[in-house]
Amino acid sequence: MQHLANVWYVAALAGELKPGQILHRRIVDEPVVMFRKPSGESVALYDRCPHRFAPLHLGKLKGEHIECGYHGLRFDCAGVCVHNPHGDGRIPRTAAVRSFPLIEKHGLLWIWMGSADRADPSLIPDYSFVGHGHPNALSSGYLMTASNYQLVTDNIMDLSHADYLHSSILNSLGAITHLIPTVTDDGHSVTIGWDYSVKRAQGLFDSFLPVPGEPAHQTLDVTWRAPALMHLIARAWQGSDRSSALEFDTLHLMTPETDTTTHYFFVGRRNFREESSELQQAITEGVMKAFSNEDKPMLNSVQASMGTTDLLALKPVFLSCDSGALRSRRLLQNLLAAEQEAAGAVAVA
Amino acid sequence: MQHLANVWYVAALAGELKPGQILHRRIVDEPVVMFRKPSGESVALYDRCPHRFAPLHLGKLKGEHIECGYHGLRFDCAGVCVHNPHGDGRIPRTAAVRSFPLIEKHGLLWIWMGSADRADPSLIPDYSFVGHGHPNALSSGYLMTASNYQLVTDNIMDLSHADYLHSSILNSLGAITHLIPTVTDDGHSVTIGWDYSVKRAQGLFDSFLPVPGEPAHQTLDVTWRAPALMHLIARAWQGSDRSSALEFDTLHLMTPETDTTTHYFFVGRRNFREESSELQQAITEGVMKAFSNEDKPMLNSVQASMGTTDLLALKPVFLSCDSGALRSRRLLQNLLAAEQEAAGAVAVA
Amino acid sequence: MQHLANVWYVAALAGELKPGQILHRRIVDEPVVMFRKPSGESVALYDRCPHRFAPLHLGKLKGEHIECGYHGLRFDCAGVCVHNPHGDGRIPRTAAVRSFPLIEKHGLLWIWMGSADRADPSLIPDYSFVGHGHPNALSSGYLMTASNYQLVTDNIMDLSHADYLHSSILNSLGAITHLIPTVTDDGHSVTIGWDYSVKRAQGLFDSFLPVPGEPAHQTLDVTWRAPALMHLIARAWQGSDRSSALEFDTLHLMTPETDTTTHYFFVGRRNFREESSELQQAITEGVMKAFSNEDKPMLNSVQASMGTTDLLALKPVFLSCDSGALRSRRLLQNLLAAEQEAAGAVAVA
Repeated sequence: MQHLANVWYVAALAGELKPGQILHRRIVDEPVVMFRKPSGESVALYDRCPHRFAPLHLGKLKGEHIECGYHGLRFDCAGVCVHNPHGDGRIPRTAAVRSFPLIEKHGLLWIWMGSADRADPSLIPDYSFVGHGHPNALSSGYLMTASNYQLVTDNIMDLSHADYLHSSILNSLGAITHLIPTVTDDGHSVTIGWDYSVKRAQGLFDSFLPVPGEPAHQTLDVTWRAPALMHLIARAWQGSDRSSALEFDTLHLMTPETDTTTHYFFVGRRNFREESSELQQAITEGVMKAFSNEDKPMLNSVQASMGTTDLLALKPVFLSCDSGALRSRRLLQNLLAAEQEAAGAVAVA
Repeated sequence: MQHLANVWYVAALAGELKPGQILHRRIVDEPVVMFRKPSGESVALYDRCPHRFAPLHLGKLKGEHIECGYHGLRFDCAGVCVHNPHGDGRIPRTAAVRSFPLIEKHGLLWIWMGSADRADPSLIPDYSFVGHGHPNALSSGYLMTASNYQLVTDNIMDLSHADYLHSSILNSLGAITHLIPTVTDDGHSVTIGWDYSVKRAQGLFDSFLPVPGEPAHQTLDVTWRAPALMHLIARAWQGSDRSSALEFDTLHLMTPETDTTTHYFFVGRRNFREESSELQQAITEGVMKAFSNEDKPMLNSVQASMGTTDLLALKPVFLSCDSGALRSRRLLQNLLAAEQEAAGAVAVA
Repeated sequence: MQHLANVWYVAALAGELKPGQILHRRIVDEPVVMFRKPSGESVALYDRCPHRFAPLHLGKLKGEHIECGYHGLRFDCAGVCVHNPHGDGRIPRTAAVRSFPLIEKHGLLWIWMGSADRADPSLIPDYSFVGHGHPNALSSGYLMTASNYQLVTDNIMDLSHADYLHSSILNSLGAITHLIPTVTDDGHSVTIGWDYSVKRAQGLFDSFLPVPGEPAHQTLDVTWRAPALMHLIARAWQGSDRSSALEFDTLHLMTPETDTTTHYFFVGRRNFREESSELQQAITEGVMKAFSNEDKPMLNSVQASMGTTDLLALKPVFLSCDSGALRSRRLLQNLLAAEQEAAGAVAVA
């Protein structure tokens, strides 16, 4: 599997991990079980008991510990076996599972699947906007695609697809495709932007602008960070006062489940009618429906169409809309090569 | 996959490709998308956009063109990209998909998956009988089997199975098995025939004969042509006037989808009560039910039972009923060998 | 596939093979078809016609013979083709399928998948207790697990799992885990036993003891024989008179279907309220529910978690509760090695 090890992945929306419940998810092809201590602190362990290889998520929480559901070994939050109920109760030296650094930040649970000693929390991108403003202004959701995570990255880095693939509130009404987007790259992140005037704003914004149905300006700005974290801000306004813009500030965060399946975490905050829970619900449903019924089937079909062959090996025709996606892919490729080289150097030393 | 390249395959019944709609089908393991021009002419293209590998069948028809549903490239009927809506609109030289020769003849769409310059329409067998007579005398249908196409050929080339496998109108009541069929072979086609007297004709014919329930003569004649095209004429009559025979003149046309799945196209024309739409419906339903509920489960089970091993490698016991099927297999094997040799010669030259 | 060839496997509960019906089952990865002669004697043949490889279980019984459902060859109970309805009716010398020794004993059908000349009926373990006593005292059932048969053996050889995995009548209420079981091994069988006092007996026994809800003694004794045959006797009594014990005398007999799927045959006889058909039904349902809803999901999850890697290659942590399972695995390993060595010697000679 082609993926970075020493990087933060999103393991879950914070709200998915409920007190007293056990959540399990395959992340970069490793089984992970998550739960919360009574203090609320979240924990991630390798989801396989070292005794008989039962998934720990079939077990029970016992205070700060998780008990295997097959023969009762208990593990603490560091993955160390702290209780062997069998015979003399001696705990075998090797009775432990790997624990993964797990940090709750910006309403997300971030997991580090590489070397734990390199898990620096300051490497988590600053998505603090998520925590600001009225809670009803926030939308979020989770879905899975049966496609490689880089294909999902490509999808967000080329928003021209919204002219063709999306109906309803995400349909960009043919306004994006003919533009040549601006792409910048600082070695760590790639930003792609579209700036344009339309006869009528996207459904997401139109009815909330001063004069619905009338011309507007729109911008779309996506910033990619490795491995597959995208921050996308969509804005719409009428007249010349850009500061009056309606904003939908969103995160599209991809975590590889396997080589051909991806966890897709979405968070979005709007700056209009922030207190309306009806609008919150309508936007959440509208966005998740578009992802599930439009993006996902297309991404899955593209994956099926490509089989297990790498995108570049298939020699795709590139268009101007691909510039952002290609820049991200190149940067990711460099990071992967550097990580593999470093791993090789360690292996030799 | 073991299949002939330079040969006409049936891609669809003509009626399956409706104006304004898009039909897609995997043919000899290649994805194919089909549609009709406004003129009605049918078109077949490789079903994968060269940009991001979206299946074109997820797109839209735009007059004579098909537009990719992901980012809007448009392709003409020759598979050439004629519209790039992105940026400056320049069309990349490599923006094209393969087009396949597709000919509508005898109510069928014939596709050529090999070298287009060798696609000679005169190689399509003469099945013009399909177009003669009253339209209500015609039955047709399509189904898929989870078995290799050669197994489906074997099934038609050995009609003794109708004594055992079929109930209802295709049940041959034990009349066929004990016969030794006549087999002839002209190097291009193989014909197998059965000629016999019965106490009572097959359900398909019996009630339409002069004296239902009474003895009759029957014949069955199947002509196989490569790759897996079978023309089967069934006849039944009473008394000595063979020219009074009731006839059911049918095509059983197999197209490999993959190595272990087959498209089965059926067309049949009767020469009795030609105007009866009730009889048309009854026969179509009866035949398709027999194929779906009797032949298909058996063929799928045989394939599962054989796994991916070739029939001959399993050293089957051969019976007199296998003579036609074996002759067809040998002829096909020769054609495959010749085609591979020719391909090798080209590769060397 | 890692399995013994020259050993008796259970192919079915005798009651599963009904007169006039055909039963088919994959056993150590071979397709097997079973039926009864009019005399009631049971027969097992290789489930694949040598003509066109149709599964014989799709055919029909004709007296003592089975007729292929595709083209009508008939085979006798030794697997020899006795009727070819085609052409001159001559029976090809190779028209035969393998037959397997099949013996009905102790209410079970025992099959020998190895060399038929070594199929010694006296090697079937003596489970004659099954046939004694009132018929209403008997419970039995069949299920499949998606796990290797050795994992299912391990499950029975370590009954401490009943403290964690089972609810309802099989829940051992935490009484077993802290014990160190007694393990003995005579080179052919392995016996593991637990002997303990409880505040209250298992649900299976408690309400039938003299004073329900009060302390009791319990024992559990499992005897394993190759390949995966387990005889488990559970006892419970109150006071010092062990001869007053309630007993549930059970068989847990595993037959590999494939490398990762197992047939699980269960038979059990109680020595209390033997005539009660209500209790018979309640115990059968309770036990089969526990197997299906508790053991099976866990075993399937463990198999999925392990993938195709062998248990020992994964370096499991062993606990005192594993002693019986490990002893059985070692004995089986020795038998497998001996069988392979013998096969090698034969191949060389």
